[in-house]
Amino acid sequence: MAFSRCGSVSFFILAIFFAVLTNQAFSSRVSSFIELPGITHDVESHSSIAAYCDSWRLAVETNNAGSWKVVPTKCVNSVATYYDVGQFDNDYDVVARYAIAFAKTIKLGGDGKDAWVFDIDETLLSNLAYYSAHGYGSEPYNSVAFNEWVVEGTAPGFGASLRLFKALKKLGFKIILLTGRDEDQRSITVSNLHDAGYSGWEHLLLRGHEDQGKAAVQYKSEQRAKMVKLGFKLHGNTGDQWSDLEGFAVADRSFKVPNPLYYIP
Amino acid sequence: MAFSRCGSVSFFILAIFFAVLTNQAFSSRVSSFIELPGITHDVESHSSIAAYCDSWRLAVETNNAGSWKVVPTKCVNSVATYYDVGQFDNDYDVVARYAIAFAKTIKLGGDGKDAWVFDIDETLLSNLAYYSAHGYGSEPYNSVAFNEWVVEGTAPGFGASLRLFKALKKLGFKIILLTGRDEDQRSITVSNLHDAGYSGWEHLLLRGHEDQGKAAVQYKSEQRAKMVKLGFKLHGNTGDQWSDLEGFAVADRSFKVPNPLYYIP
Repeated sequence: MAFSRCGSVSFFILAIFFAVLTNQAFSSRVSSFIELPGITHDVESHSSIAAYCDSWRLAVETNNAGSWKVVPTKCVNSVATYYDVGQFDNDYDVVARYAIAFAKTIKLGGDGKDAWVFDIDETLLSNLAYYSAHGYGSEPYNSVAFNEWVVEGTAPGFGASLRLFKALKKLGFKIILLTGRDEDQRSITVSNLHDAGYSGWEHLLLRGHEDQGKAAVQYKSEQRAKMVKLGFKLHGNTGDQWSDLEGFAVADRSFKVPNPLYYIP
Repeated sequence: MAFSRCGSVSFFILAIFFAVLTNQAFSSRVSSFIELPGITHDVESHSSIAAYCDSWRLAVETNNAGSWKVVPTKCVNSVATYYDVGQFDNDYDVVARYAIAFAKTIKLGGDGKDAWVFDIDETLLSNLAYYSAHGYGSEPYNSVAFNEWVVEGTAPGFGASLRLFKALKKLGFKIILLTGRDEDQRSITVSNLHDAGYSGWEHLLLRGHEDQGKAAVQYKSEQRAKMVKLGFKLHGNTGDQWSDLEGFAVADRSFKVPNPLYYIP
């Protein structure tokens, strides 16, 4: 009786134990692959949805996807996880390190005209709190709701962008901020940037009346061209959208910050 | 006594059970995160090396990394796994699907001048067999050994590139092949392409004597410009290197095929 009870307890525990193991095996695509240091996660558990969503995200980041409206429904969890597990932070950290390494190779002219361009939203300031409350990019853009969030002025900076921003200033670069935000959001943008830890930029360029309705790539190219006309040498440009980086008057090196939440043409 | 033995058996089984759970927790960066369908793998097992190597690969694919010589030693296993588990194939499949979707939006002129450009190595033909035998990109480029491999003429095509190539031909696009291979490798290249399943291209452009020593981006831009001069409209361009896609006479849309094995300036 005692042995029988003991056996059933053991059996119950073993059942749980094997249930855990079986669950692990089901989440594995290539269960027979030999585990090697540092690659275990790739091998064990790439479900087809996760694999597709990784491919989708790569297509977005390389601009292969071109114009897109919302995050595919099946990739919403994957996008949320991308931020939650810190992979976005890892990715941005590597971008920032490449940018700083490049910046250190530049011999500055000493005339105060060596410049670096930054976009603001999703480049210096994170609106993840807004997007996590609005379906992680799966809902169409809502300008009213988003602008209500913007005027709160509570968007935090990214660790990587703060490091990059400060490193560039220390190296002697002039910082040009170029945003798709409207001119009437200047003061809240300035206070938000200060609160997030940014200061000492040279120019903060926002959309004026004459820029309304212009595609981002046109507006941003025109603004960069104006800076070039003022004598600035645009060594680097950091933005989360390809429309921050392409067009004309492009910088010598462009650094694409990951953003799987939305696309701006 | 019986109870005591039973307790110790149960304790032993429980100890194994918790060891498994603990091991899982150690391999997890965010152990408190709720598991959702399709994202389990991201949560459970991103080791710091794997996370770094994912970030490195993204930096390479977005051209944030700029010029690089060899795959970082700690990412060799990660690159091998990227191919072994089929994530490269998934990624290329998504690229090809975006390219075909774009191609289908184009209204062809009916003059036989609507064209699509393809690079060859790592775009139409896979040299993975060579690179897997040479450290997965961790060894510096060895032109002698690589050319010995090229003249074997046994490089297979990619599933995704074959689908894209055939879909474009069927839609009526003229195919222009533009490769960094030398003119004296024309015949082996043609037979390798045929063996791999490609046929019916309009032009196969290889480096002539006058192109020796030119940077890829210059050589390829000049060749594309010649095609434009011949009246071709370059709607799309597919290549695994940014130097296949940038420069002048660029196509309307460029499609970057993933390649974490090597970089051509």
